[in-house]
Amino acid sequence: MEKFLAKAKSSSRVLNALSGSDKNRILKEMADALRSNTMNLIEANALDMADGEKNNLSSALMDRLLLDEARIEGMAVAVEEIAALKDPVGRILDGWVTEDGLNMQKVSIPIGVIGIIYESRPNVTSDTAALCFKSSNVCILKGGKEAQNSNKAIADVLQAVLERNNLPKEMISLIPDASREGVDKLIKMDKYVDLIIPRGGEGLIKHVSANATVSVVKHDKGQCHTYIDRDAKLDNAIAIAINAKCQRPGVCNAMETLLVDSAIAKDALPKIKSAFDEYHTELKGCVETQAIIDVENATEEDFDTEYLANILNIKVVDGVEGAIEHIVRFTSGHSEAIITENITSAELFLNSIDAAALYVNASTRFTDGGAFGFGAEVGISTNKLHARGPMGIEGLTTYKFKIYGSGQTRG
Amino acid sequence: MEKFLAKAKSSSRVLNALSGSDKNRILKEMADALRSNTMNLIEANALDMADGEKNNLSSALMDRLLLDEARIEGMAVAVEEIAALKDPVGRILDGWVTEDGLNMQKVSIPIGVIGIIYESRPNVTSDTAALCFKSSNVCILKGGKEAQNSNKAIADVLQAVLERNNLPKEMISLIPDASREGVDKLIKMDKYVDLIIPRGGEGLIKHVSANATVSVVKHDKGQCHTYIDRDAKLDNAIAIAINAKCQRPGVCNAMETLLVDSAIAKDALPKIKSAFDEYHTELKGCVETQAIIDVENATEEDFDTEYLANILNIKVVDGVEGAIEHIVRFTSGHSEAIITENITSAELFLNSIDAAALYVNASTRFTDGGAFGFGAEVGISTNKLHARGPMGIEGLTTYKFKIYGSGQTRG
Repeated sequence: MEKFLAKAKSSSRVLNALSGSDKNRILKEMADALRSNTMNLIEANALDMADGEKNNLSSALMDRLLLDEARIEGMAVAVEEIAALKDPVGRILDGWVTEDGLNMQKVSIPIGVIGIIYESRPNVTSDTAALCFKSSNVCILKGGKEAQNSNKAIADVLQAVLERNNLPKEMISLIPDASREGVDKLIKMDKYVDLIIPRGGEGLIKHVSANATVSVVKHDKGQCHTYIDRDAKLDNAIAIAINAKCQRPGVCNAMETLLVDSAIAKDALPKIKSAFDEYHTELKGCVETQAIIDVENATEEDFDTEYLANILNIKVVDGVEGAIEHIVRFTSGHSEAIITENITSAELFLNSIDAAALYVNASTRFTDGGAFGFGAEVGISTNKLHARGPMGIEGLTTYKFKIYGSGQTRG
Repeated sequence: MEKFLAKAKSSSRVLNALSGSDKNRILKEMADALRSNTMNLIEANALDMADGEKNNLSSALMDRLLLDEARIEGMAVAVEEIAALKDPVGRILDGWVTEDGLNMQKVSIPIGVIGIIYESRPNVTSDTAALCFKSSNVCILKGGKEAQNSNKAIADVLQAVLERNNLPKEMISLIPDASREGVDKLIKMDKYVDLIIPRGGEGLIKHVSANATVSVVKHDKGQCHTYIDRDAKLDNAIAIAINAKCQRPGVCNAMETLLVDSAIAKDALPKIKSAFDEYHTELKGCVETQAIIDVENATEEDFDTEYLANILNIKVVDGVEGAIEHIVRFTSGHSEAIITENITSAELFLNSIDAAALYVNASTRFTDGGAFGFGAEVGISTNKLHARGPMGIEGLTTYKFKIYGSGQTRG
């Protein structure tokens, strides 16, 4: 592992020296190579699909795992779109002259070597590799075991393009030892690795945070709330709540708990229930909710659960202060929304809650790189530092100061 | 510890709600309180000084430990200067309208609860507390054992001002358990603590990085180099090198190794030696250096040592490429300098080395918040992410997105 990481680190300098046009040309070659290897990729994927069947993966997981011609074309297009992004490195972020006459330039640079741990779809392999390459970062990829053949085949295609361009193939690698022990080694190799991005289950992320000596940007769970205030337009509010829960329940920016102002609960809750009933949402409620509509009981544990499914907690709260109190307690710092026409309640909500994204009168589902206008994204960071919320390609850069003097010494 | 941290975290919301003018008024009260408690502080400090004498602290350490009237006045003035800084929270860092018509505001906010571990002078206690308070961060301070009575007295003065203003005293606290075990608990309390800043010895920083689950911004060592290129003005170069080494050898931005281009070594090294001899610098050199001037041998280990003393390694290298090769191997990512009139060599140096601050024709001694124009500083970060280099008050903030919609749902 250490030998491999030393190579990865040294390839970082080679990558850093590539011009933007070289990077874009190579990315386009990668997109073409994915297309021309469609049959190989489908063959490798078939092995994973067969294993998945043997291991009784759910049909949802099997669908995520599947590669077909259309999906491989989608992967190629994604790589081309990443090539088309503005180069995030070499930008002068700030500049000034100091009192001593030093010319300061704060310049964006790649982070260096990034380890990314993910589960889910094989296209993440090519997306992430392209995002890292575009931002001049060496990536070490650790995908899910269930997609190992697909991921290996995709990495082989990308590495072949690197080698054809006389570049070290370590610029884009799968982790050589994908076992738990291998990952545990990787996250302690701060001599070679500059950042670890764990995406996935809570257990994985806790383990990585607790054991890494490398900096970690977590992509953790979203315990997202929507609060319907007494001053909300109710139709508006229900449409937003339905969207936040039902449009795609399995994602981190979906709502898990709906908070309803006690001042309107009696009128609003029956309407809310009938709207969610149309979407076959399983509703759970606090005692006050249960006094108004017929739903299951929501426990403290429920209020702390990211369902990733079409299940919703409902809680009656005392106005915006009550909503804030509940959210401060249960938020995972991802996305929170208030629906209100009242500017004071809105601002109190925005200022009192610490989360990556705070919405007034919109669905929490908008928290992603595309909707924010960042272009392709690495994921959605639940870190408080470095990158917060949607982590676009700029999140894969850091900076250094270039300082031009004319003989200055310190007095 | 957990009870205390829960209080600290909840006091974070109270602090966050204070207006800028309230914060400044309270900071000024703190400055006045330091002044009016001068005698108490000196008495407490006398206990530390007596312990220091008993424990045979070096005279340099004893001098750093000492509090007298002038130094306490300096602490009060520093707090007033921090009050006068622009409020770093609540700034709109960016703003735009998305394709969906969402009004996006990226707003600076405090990080939350920050644990700071430091050794050195007692004034760091009031400086750091004021910087955190000004940026609406709760701080948990862990100073050096040798200054425990002084630090306690300073914290008492600041907490009395908080209480007089009906604010929870946990906003500014010393760690309740200052033992190794106490620190080990603190750095794992990610439920309550948002950031740990360790300043001090390599051992401390390695231990914190390896064991923290909280995010860490390290303030680690500076293994700084200056390279004299064949195209340097030699007088210029020598003046800069002398400044980088001798003006204050005990600090992290002082030079540890001087690299000299082989093309000029024969002419330059004797002049360099006689300049450093005037400053009584202990010189060590590589074999090529020793062939030209009479100095001790510099080992591989020497090239990897932060002396924090008036000792200097000299190495002859093959031009800028040789200098880059050596620096890439030994840099701690702090500050590196090239002295040259050649623009191509300068740019190659700036672009090839990854460090917080890269200088052309200036002394590495300029790497600090004051010289950069950031005002007061928390320290000099050797982290690659979040804050890099001098960490000013802005380094104590993060951001969130406030998003104003008008009923948007995701399509």
